[in-house]
This record gives sequence, structure tokens and C-alpha cells, in this order.
Amino acid sequence: MRLFVYEDADGKAVGASADAETFHPVASLLPDLPQKFETLLAHAGALERIADAVRRRPAGRPIAAVRLLPFLERPNAMWALALNFRTHIAETGLTTSPDHPHIFLRTAASYVGPDAPLLSPPEEVARAFDYEGELGVVIGKGGRHIPRERALDHVAGYTCINEGSVREYQIHNRQFGLGKNFEASGSYGPWLVTPDAFGDPARHEVVTRVNGVTRQRSRLDDMLFDVAAVISYLSAGYRLRPGDLIAMGTPGALPPAPDDVAGHDLSRQYGPFKTPGLVHMRPGDTVEIEISGLGVLRNPVVADAGAAYRVG
Amino acid sequence: MRLFVYEDADGKAVGASADAETFHPVASLLPDLPQKFETLLAHAGALERIADAVRRRPAGRPIAAVRLLPFLERPNAMWALALNFRTHIAETGLTTSPDHPHIFLRTAASYVGPDAPLLSPPEEVARAFDYEGELGVVIGKGGRHIPRERALDHVAGYTCINEGSVREYQIHNRQFGLGKNFEASGSYGPWLVTPDAFGDPARHEVVTRVNGVTRQRSRLDDMLFDVAAVISYLSAGYRLRPGDLIAMGTPGALPPAPDDVAGHDLSRQYGPFKTPGLVHMRPGDTVEIEISGLGVLRNPVVADAGAAYRVG
Repeated sequence: MRLFVYEDADGKAVGASADAETFHPVASLLPDLPQKFETLLAHAGALERIADAVRRRPAGRPIAAVRLLPFLERPNAMWALALNFRTHIAETGLTTSPDHPHIFLRTAASYVGPDAPLLSPPEEVARAFDYEGELGVVIGKGGRHIPRERALDHVAGYTCINEGSVREYQIHNRQFGLGKNFEASGSYGPWLVTPDAFGDPARHEVVTRVNGVTRQRSRLDDMLFDVAAVISYLSAGYRLRPGDLIAMGTPGALPPAPDDVAGHDLSRQYGPFKTPGLVHMRPGDTVEIEISGLGVLRNPVVADAGAAYRVG
Repeated sequence: MRLFVYEDADGKAVGASADAETFHPVASLLPDLPQKFETLLAHAGALERIADAVRRRPAGRPIAAVRLLPFLERPNAMWALALNFRTHIAETGLTTSPDHPHIFLRTAASYVGPDAPLLSPPEEVARAFDYEGELGVVIGKGGRHIPRERALDHVAGYTCINEGSVREYQIHNRQFGLGKNFEASGSYGPWLVTPDAFGDPARHEVVTRVNGVTRQRSRLDDMLFDVAAVISYLSAGYRLRPGDLIAMGTPGALPPAPDDVAGHDLSRQYGPFKTPGLVHMRPGDTVEIEISGLGVLRNPVVADAGAAYRVG
């Protein structure tokens, strides 16, 4: 079952879909349930009841007729992992602890939803604006000191993430800080897919395409720390909360095809790591993150406004 | 003028005080204003009107009779600076960029308000739980690409911060991640003091006391990057928002007095940096952060529950 937040002429609401083509408003399926996304995630039995209700009412409104929004309002934490795929560790030449995941935070303002523009910084601010296709994990049931073997009980579902990064700022100092938190630099969506529909993340694959050219492709079993390990680690210090998001890290670049001029031209790369097959996101591009079983997260890239002082 | 959020038998409300002893509910002073803290910060002229109103009505309810709460609900960003005081850089032996501030993020759940317990992790999880006395900057007017000379126009006020840190987790990997985000590991408050009342931060001093013993004492002019520089830096990538909080970094440890047994005993220190005068926070302690002109942020330290699996 897919769950999402959409907007139409009547306002903002939660929708559920069994088939990726049509949906039903949760309020019309089950008016007794809370109608806020995060509250639904934590409401005992709610996701099962919605899944059951959409299965029994297959024909709904076309999803294409509404606008999908970022489905999380402002969660307490949007965690993200650095250097969690062996191919990405290899391409950067960086080291990471084999014992503990490499964790940082993003703010809600750094993410937009499906089809919304990603903002490419003005050239005078930064030139290396990079996609990172990632699996997103959305927490359902909260918890603390969660053992690995119970960790997946706390997952409400999965989504695609473009953990967009501004490399020059990311390496300004040792903490990534602002480089992972530029305004509207990343995205997630298009929806949450429940674990019963997605199955074991390790069996799936993430693909990143820029203007239709595949730039990343990796199975999700290449992670140093899997979903259960990361949930268990975070819960040693932090009470995971409904609607928290975890970006599981990105794989390395796919080697470019022989005729792929942009993919071979390292002189067009402005980040700290120049890698064949890596291209930066530029205004006019369309970037897609596709995870098998989750669907496609698609965003246009547009130029952010220039670096002029603005109040508000 | 001091502005805070308090709770009494009638619920939660915003209070304002001219004298640090008594206050008036903002709703009774100026019922036409919005009564949500963050909204007030961004409301043109609101802080000036409240300051004027409390000045004209000096005798109010005793602040000691109500419970002060963390005054920020869940801001979009709670930024913090690493290695921003020369004395702290010296004691850690670490390097930091001279050109760009060293930035990371904390979640709202990592902070409590004044007088609320700081949670000391169980010993089997971590033993080096450290205070960090810091100046907190609260954003009022939002903005982007803010020049340094306009940066202080965007400050609604200042507060004290205990940017409590769990050192073992902070060094698990290169990003601080969970070590700066343990549940209820830090605090801010007791209130926001407006810039007209506080004046130039550089003229003030931060002091940290544990059980009455002074452990940190530094003028706020020892920062590598001052308030204006940090606001300007962040706004190059991020639209600062009303209610965002910035923790400006902590100074080094004060050398211990000759008869200070705990301050001299490095065998009691479990973090990566053993420094005379540093003590960890332990259950039963009382920790105070005092900044001249801002008041005292006081918190008891209590043992967090043991490392047993808990749902919710």
C-alpha cells in the first residue's frame, strides 16, 4: 500500500493507493482515523486498516490529477548516513568506521516533495550540486534501545530520497553542516510504501537518472550498516519518533558509456572528488531516483535566485 | 526585555518581564498580538510593543510561581558550532578551518528547558557526558544572503545554552551525529533577552558551574566566528527562519583550583580529551550556565532509564 499527502482544490489530505495509478482519500475510506500523516503512522492498526480498505475498493481517483506534497511536516529528526555503500567509499577514497554508522542531520527545509524544483545554487555560491539516490526509511512506532531483531517493527514504510548535496560547502570544515542543508537541495517521495508491499530492502535496487541517463545503479545489499543496524544504533541515544526519516546512504557513480561525453569529462566537475560517470545537477536537468518496488521520485532542477540580500 | 513560555494551572502561555523577578502574560498586555512564541518573533514591531508595555506596568506575577518551558517548539533548524573558541581549540588539540565556521545540527528533542532534568546516559551506553556553556542566538526576522553588517537585524534575542554532548558517540565516526543528539542531553533558557537589553555579545561573559564550582569562564569575544559572521554564512545556503537557534560554541575548561580533587583527577575522565578542570556531568549534579545580562540556566542531572527496549 502507498500512502501520501496530496493537494487538490479542496486542500491538503492523505491519500492511499493499492495500484500506483488511482487512490482514495483516507478520510473517505476511514473517516474515524486521524487525518494527519504522522499521527496515522503511530496509530495502532491504522496502516493495516487503510491497506485493507483500498484493496477492497480498487478504482479510485487518478493520482496524476492531484499534486503530491512532501508527506512529512517537520519531523523531529531527519537522519542521514554518509559513506554507507562500499562503491561510494571506494570512489571517494575516504575512510569510515567499520563499527559505527556515519550519521548527520538534515532539516525539513532542505527537502522538497516529488515534482517540486530542486534549487541549484547560483554559480558564485557553489558549482558542485550533486544527486545522491538513497533508500528512505520512515519510522512508525517510536522506541528506545531497539534490538536489531525488533528494529523493522518500527518501520512504517520506505520511500526514495535524493539526498542532494552542495560539495564545496560540505568540505568547508569537518562537519558537513550547511553543505547538506541548502534550501530545497534534496527531495523525498513520491509516497511511502508499507513494508508488507516492499519486502526486504536488500533485494531491491536504487537507480539515479539525470535527463534519462543512468548515473547510479546499485543493489541495496551493498550497505555497510543495514536498516535494522541503523535503527538500533540511533535508538541507543535517541527515542525514535513517528515520522522520523532516515536516508540510508548513496552508492558510487556508474562508469560512463563510451559515447557519454559529459560522463567522461572530469574538467566539468567542481567537487572534491572527480569520478568518471559523475555529473553535477544543473538548471534545466530532470533527476529521477527509482527504487524497485517504491516507484520514481522525479524533480526538475531550477536555478535558485541570485545571491542578493532578501528579508523574510 | 525577557520573553519566555511558561505553564501554570491555566495552561501554556507567553510571558514578558522587564526585571527578571515578575512578569505579565503577553495575552493580558497586548491581546491583539499572536500568542505563539515563534510567531511573535516574526511579527513586525511585536517585541518593541511588548517591551514598551512591560516597562509601563512594572509589578507583575512572580516568575518563580510558574514553570518555564523550552520557548521554541520545533524550529526548522537548531544549528551549533564546533571549535569556535580559541581556548577550546587549544585544549582539544584539534584543527578547524580559519575561513568557514564548523557547523552541525541538533534536534529539538536533544534540548530541554530551564530546571528540567538533563538525562545522563546509563554507564553501559556512555560515561563522558559533558556540559558546554554557550551563547544561544534566536532568529527573529528571516532572511537569505544576509550581509554581515545587516546580520544583527535578524536576531530576536539571546539565551544561555548547555550544548550537552556524549563524547564517546561524538567520536564514533567523523560526523558528530548521535553524540550531539542524545535525548534531553542539552538545555536552553531560561528566556530570550532582546538585543536592546543585552547589547554587544562580545562584551559579555559565559560561566559554567557544576555543583557551584566554576568549570568554564570566558569572555564572548574569544570566538573565531562571531554572531554576525555565522548568520551571514548560514544564509548563503539556508533561509534563516523565525525561531531558529544557533549555539555559538563553548570555551575551554578553567584550570582547577589547587584543592579541587575532581578537577585534577584525569583518571575520572572517559572522553577523548583529558583536560585538568574538566568533569563529566553525573546524576545528582546541578549544572548552571550563566551569561552576564542573560541570567542563569540551571538544570539538575538525572540518570536516564537503563538500556532496556522500550516502545513508544
